[in-house]
Amino acid sequence: MSHTIEQIAAALGTRAVGAVGIEIDGVAEPAAASATQLALAMKPQFAERLKEGAARAAVLWEDADWQAYGLEAAILAPRPRFAMSGLTRMFDRGQGWPEGIHPSAIIHEGALLGRGVSVGPFTVIEDGAHVGEDCVIGPQCYVGQGARIGPQGLLREGVKIGPRVEIGARFIAQPGAVLGGDGFSFVTPETSGVEQVRKSLGDRGEAQAQSWARIHSLGAVEIGDDVEIGANTTIDRGTIRSTRVGDGTKIDNLVMIGHNVEIGRDCLICGLVGIAGSTRIGNHVVLGGKTGVSDNIFIGDNVITGGGTIVLANIPAGRVMLGYPAMKMEATMELFKGFRRLRRLFDDVAQLKKTVSNPPPND
Amino acid sequence: MSHTIEQIAAALGTRAVGAVGIEIDGVAEPAAASATQLALAMKPQFAERLKEGAARAAVLWEDADWQAYGLEAAILAPRPRFAMSGLTRMFDRGQGWPEGIHPSAIIHEGALLGRGVSVGPFTVIEDGAHVGEDCVIGPQCYVGQGARIGPQGLLREGVKIGPRVEIGARFIAQPGAVLGGDGFSFVTPETSGVEQVRKSLGDRGEAQAQSWARIHSLGAVEIGDDVEIGANTTIDRGTIRSTRVGDGTKIDNLVMIGHNVEIGRDCLICGLVGIAGSTRIGNHVVLGGKTGVSDNIFIGDNVITGGGTIVLANIPAGRVMLGYPAMKMEATMELFKGFRRLRRLFDDVAQLKKTVSNPPPND
Amino acid sequence: MSHTIEQIAAALGTRAVGAVGIEIDGVAEPAAASATQLALAMKPQFAERLKEGAARAAVLWEDADWQAYGLEAAILAPRPRFAMSGLTRMFDRGQGWPEGIHPSAIIHEGALLGRGVSVGPFTVIEDGAHVGEDCVIGPQCYVGQGARIGPQGLLREGVKIGPRVEIGARFIAQPGAVLGGDGFSFVTPETSGVEQVRKSLGDRGEAQAQSWARIHSLGAVEIGDDVEIGANTTIDRGTIRSTRVGDGTKIDNLVMIGHNVEIGRDCLICGLVGIAGSTRIGNHVVLGGKTGVSDNIFIGDNVITGGGTIVLANIPAGRVMLGYPAMKMEATMELFKGFRRLRRLFDDVAQLKKTVSNPPPND
Repeated sequence: MSHTIEQIAAALGTRAVGAVGIEIDGVAEPAAASATQLALAMKPQFAERLKEGAARAAVLWEDADWQAYGLEAAILAPRPRFAMSGLTRMFDRGQGWPEGIHPSAIIHEGALLGRGVSVGPFTVIEDGAHVGEDCVIGPQCYVGQGARIGPQGLLREGVKIGPRVEIGARFIAQPGAVLGGDGFSFVTPETSGVEQVRKSLGDRGEAQAQSWARIHSLGAVEIGDDVEIGANTTIDRGTIRSTRVGDGTKIDNLVMIGHNVEIGRDCLICGLVGIAGSTRIGNHVVLGGKTGVSDNIFIGDNVITGGGTIVLANIPAGRVMLGYPAMKMEATMELFKGFRRLRRLFDDVAQLKKTVSNPPPND
Repeated sequence: MSHTIEQIAAALGTRAVGAVGIEIDGVAEPAAASATQLALAMKPQFAERLKEGAARAAVLWEDADWQAYGLEAAILAPRPRFAMSGLTRMFDRGQGWPEGIHPSAIIHEGALLGRGVSVGPFTVIEDGAHVGEDCVIGPQCYVGQGARIGPQGLLREGVKIGPRVEIGARFIAQPGAVLGGDGFSFVTPETSGVEQVRKSLGDRGEAQAQSWARIHSLGAVEIGDDVEIGANTTIDRGTIRSTRVGDGTKIDNLVMIGHNVEIGRDCLICGLVGIAGSTRIGNHVVLGGKTGVSDNIFIGDNVITGGGTIVLANIPAGRVMLGYPAMKMEATMELFKGFRRLRRLFDDVAQLKKTVSNPPPND
Repeated sequence: MSHTIEQIAAALGTRAVGAVGIEIDGVAEPAAASATQLALAMKPQFAERLKEGAARAAVLWEDADWQAYGLEAAILAPRPRFAMSGLTRMFDRGQGWPEGIHPSAIIHEGALLGRGVSVGPFTVIEDGAHVGEDCVIGPQCYVGQGARIGPQGLLREGVKIGPRVEIGARFIAQPGAVLGGDGFSFVTPETSGVEQVRKSLGDRGEAQAQSWARIHSLGAVEIGDDVEIGANTTIDRGTIRSTRVGDGTKIDNLVMIGHNVEIGRDCLICGLVGIAGSTRIGNHVVLGGKTGVSDNIFIGDNVITGGGTIVLANIPAGRVMLGYPAMKMEATMELFKGFRRLRRLFDDVAQLKKTVSNPPPND
């Protein structure tokens, strides 16, 4: 897999300068780059380290003085971070999986596979499942009865897709992801302690001990186009309607999406986020790592949460939130400063009480 | 799968009214229901939307004026949420797995399978394992040496049961769940920094750098009857005795139950909860999503925690807790209000200090 | 599996007293021990319960009056907790897996397996993978193209190792662990709301709605010697360089290690911890359960965090931290006390304001 600097720049829609015919077979950090690797030096402090490596060519920012770094060629990118997307796609070596259906895969005769579909060893595809053209279904995967996967999808090893789950085009699922487990929904014969507490916010009082009856999940999971799901992430089926994830939304590892949740388009849901049942998330929302969102609430479009935020109530569109409980980020940052000064505040008030109760003698 | 309104009401033990012979082949939300689906309209605001759909029959609350909604028949449920349990069970289409042992499954000749057991493709059942009558063991599952699963259990795809794990009747495990991984237990040759800090609460001081020696897990996992475990949840083996989960307890996705933990009966453990080693949880406890519980502590019966609660110390029975650190829910809600007013408090104290040190002239 | 008290003491390097020829076939808690089991009674309160069981021999602390407990023999350990490591290793019954390569395993002809390697059923080992001598690769595992695993490793059931991942000697991976999923790294064509917010800390303002372009992961994962990874934990590939975990580090269940993260040696990373992309963690660091660490920061050597800590900024070496946001543990404990007294503080200030604005009459 080798490309010239000129070819790479053309693919990225950026400008190439110098000896643009140099052949490149990979990318590397500046200090680690060999003579056939393209160094990634998006900022001046990274470019400083070019001299520690052997790169003849690098990706630099738009107006970089590339020759000053001793380079023979350069790609000058107006937004270098965005150039990373195209660059890494060009040099991705993938999984090395062969094309075609592995003979050990068990594909039900009632399953429908589009042209160009590959299926790895020990994978099971059930009756009525549809797998779109050019999908790559990895080893040890499971595709349940009646599930549908759009064209050009990629399931890494051990992905599990439950029955009747519907997935759009260009889907990517990382190893061990689970779509279509049953929702976590239980009910007691009489009003439960949890229901009482939601009303009273107080202790649970007289609630009788009861056992939990299961509410089965009849809904499915519906995933839009261009969605990616992280390793060991789980998305539960809805109770009656489906749990939904909109087009272009990307979900990281070990995320829990509860039953009936609806997530809009182009969201980023970071690692270890949990979204409880029936909550709705708007479009272009970014939930930082370890954010938790209560059930049955609403998060508006364009909301961003910082790491560890616990969302207990609705958030209007456009807000940037942080903390437990979630508040506007400036307010939480101010609160965090207050935390550091709280002890002094207690001391000040104690002193004031003493002063005020024993005023200085009035002479 | 079709039932009359009369049959459904009889199964639920509720009252049917109107044209109770109407055949129903599924359930739906009011606005989405077809003429052969039963609309779920448990509250007046849901019932308002019946006119957007085509339902001829619905489930309503006990004294609903069902004819006013243009229905031909209705099921009137005194606790509609509880009726959901029976209703969804009646219409659950399941996984569509065939009965019997798939020829690709590898079942050790020393394993014992009860009557009516089904086993999916690529599943492994080891020597000495016992699988109770009418269990459904899904595809790509693993049942370790000497493990026991009671009757009528269901393992969804890719569930892993370690050696010597013991499970009661009617067990359900969602995809990717792991029971019987080894506990996370390590020890240093000399007192470690962590042990010092537990005493001093201060910085770790002189603690020498040491490597960790592994404490192997010799205990197993013991699971009662009627337990459900969520997708990709993990329950570790005990060190000497077993880790235990009591009858009727339900555990959601991505939950971590550490070694030696004991959980009582009829608890609900929500998504992304972590319970550290050797902690004991009473009966009828509800741990809200993302609750974390320290090791070696005790949570009494009937305790409820809200989302994101971090429990660092014992909790007496019956308490409803929230926050980091966990405090009584009212106290935490009051604290959260204080957070929003803290800045003003600092300002007030600053003003008071100025006023008191410069008292108004006494004339 | 049976050993005499004398043999056990010799293996542990500790002292045996009394009838040291007694044969022992297992270990147990004092109250549950049979006559052929060694009771573990590391502290006087545990030893009290010896009379409830049938143990003839026990492990006690160094200067214990062992005969007073009615024992016939004892092992006296200067650091009993450390003795647990050797003891539990001696009595670990393991998985019961047979030696050799299971005929159902699919091992590419280009894979290289060292002497004494065992491979379980339905496992896939890809082209160019190297598996070191005496490794035990469990059932239903996946070892990707060009991955390398050092000698004496153990992969429990369903472990997934991505392409080009490199792992040292004596590796242990618990069921369902995933090494080498792709990093969660996306970029928008123009500056995104997240980038704006990182500068402004304010609301995201005018940020245009944009879709996310994928940055592919070209790096791998590099794991040192003597590392253990918990059940369903995920470690992502790096973008250009590799994600790294140092020698002797132990990682618990359901932990998320993001792309480009570097973790030093002999760390303990507890359950449900998340470490976001490109963060560096020093040596001998202990991250308590549910700790979250932001991306692109640095945690120094010997740092310890308590349960639920959210780390939003660098931490210097040696610090013991707790809370959200992470502060020194004493400061957070003090803050937690302040939380409980905050209401009274508001009342005091309200009272002071009243008193100061209406001073007592000056007569």
